[in-house]
Amino acid sequence: MKNRAKPIENLVRELNKLPGIGSKTAQRLAYHIIDLEVKDVKVLADSIVDAKENVKQCSVCCNFTDSDPCNICSDFKRDESIICVVEYPKDVEAMERSNCYHGKYHVLHGVISPNKGIGPANLRIRELLKRLEDDKVEEIIIATNPTVEGDTTALYISRLINPLGIKTTRIAYGLPVGGDLEYYDDVTISTAMENRRELK
Amino acid sequence: MKNRAKPIENLVRELNKLPGIGSKTAQRLAYHIIDLEVKDVKVLADSIVDAKENVKQCSVCCNFTDSDPCNICSDFKRDESIICVVEYPKDVEAMERSNCYHGKYHVLHGVISPNKGIGPANLRIRELLKRLEDDKVEEIIIATNPTVEGDTTALYISRLINPLGIKTTRIAYGLPVGGDLEYYDDVTISTAMENRRELK
Repeated sequence: MKNRAKPIENLVRELNKLPGIGSKTAQRLAYHIIDLEVKDVKVLADSIVDAKENVKQCSVCCNFTDSDPCNICSDFKRDESIICVVEYPKDVEAMERSNCYHGKYHVLHGVISPNKGIGPANLRIRELLKRLEDDKVEEIIIATNPTVEGDTTALYISRLINPLGIKTTRIAYGLPVGGDLEYYDDVTISTAMENRRELK
Repeated sequence: MKNRAKPIENLVRELNKLPGIGSKTAQRLAYHIIDLEVKDVKVLADSIVDAKENVKQCSVCCNFTDSDPCNICSDFKRDESIICVVEYPKDVEAMERSNCYHGKYHVLHGVISPNKGIGPANLRIRELLKRLEDDKVEEIIIATNPTVEGDTTALYISRLINPLGIKTTRIAYGLPVGGDLEYYDDVTISTAMENRRELK
């Protein structure tokens, strides 16, 4: 951008690299940042560097954490006999928000995706198998997303775990609660029909 | 958020303070930042602090700049006899993008808005009047937005400038090019009708 001050140009370019931040939003954020108090800007910049530097993967569940093992893995009140396997740390947050699950987690950090060159070896599957060695785990709930990659990954993991005699389950597919038939695609609807349950 | 690592929590909170960044987007950005290379994160954080520290207001036009006077004010190829008055630095960028104007600018850094306690004294109006003292300026184009505040500010400035014998103009209102009558509000349409021009 011609006639834009260099530091603004740099900031807009850096913000523009973030996902979902287009050039318009980047510009709006940049001008907002310039209008902030110096101390608030420092807090923002520090929080960015601090998050990068102090967040590691938990050596047990591979979720992001600043203490190892993470809060969930070191919480003795949580059920050690169930592990919920998810794709990404944000999925742990979504599960925790729903407040319906009180077992442990395992974060794969991705899904099997030959297109993107991601195979099982790139995921934290080895770490998951290691956790099953001490016989405490009775059930693995595979909560990868209902996509081709998520399904493939679920199938791959279940085939590894089944021979160990541990129960493997998959979260249910169907219409989201509050959803409207009219707005959902054919695949969601036909899956919801297939997975129908008897009302007793 | 329970069970979220503290540095992630801090980063999400700071990002969430930015305009248009809700908690979902803040979370997505935070996880993206954690996945970046350390050096890219440093570049991002530095660009934020750098923009805040090195961007000042031009002593002539009050636009943001890292050199004083700014590139536009010190560009001798631009017409010194016209000043386009805009609300914010981003409006200068919009005008420059359109590439239709080759005069100078003046940035008010706001509009008169009694609701928000912003009066003429809070804007860079004094600085504008000072620029008119050397009799070089022949026209002031007031390009504040077509809102109640923008109109009020335009009227206020024109009343200050008219006695000086300098021509004051206002950018045109009407339907945007490529717009569709169907999608515009009554006020835009009636303004476009009032401001109709004869085809010759």
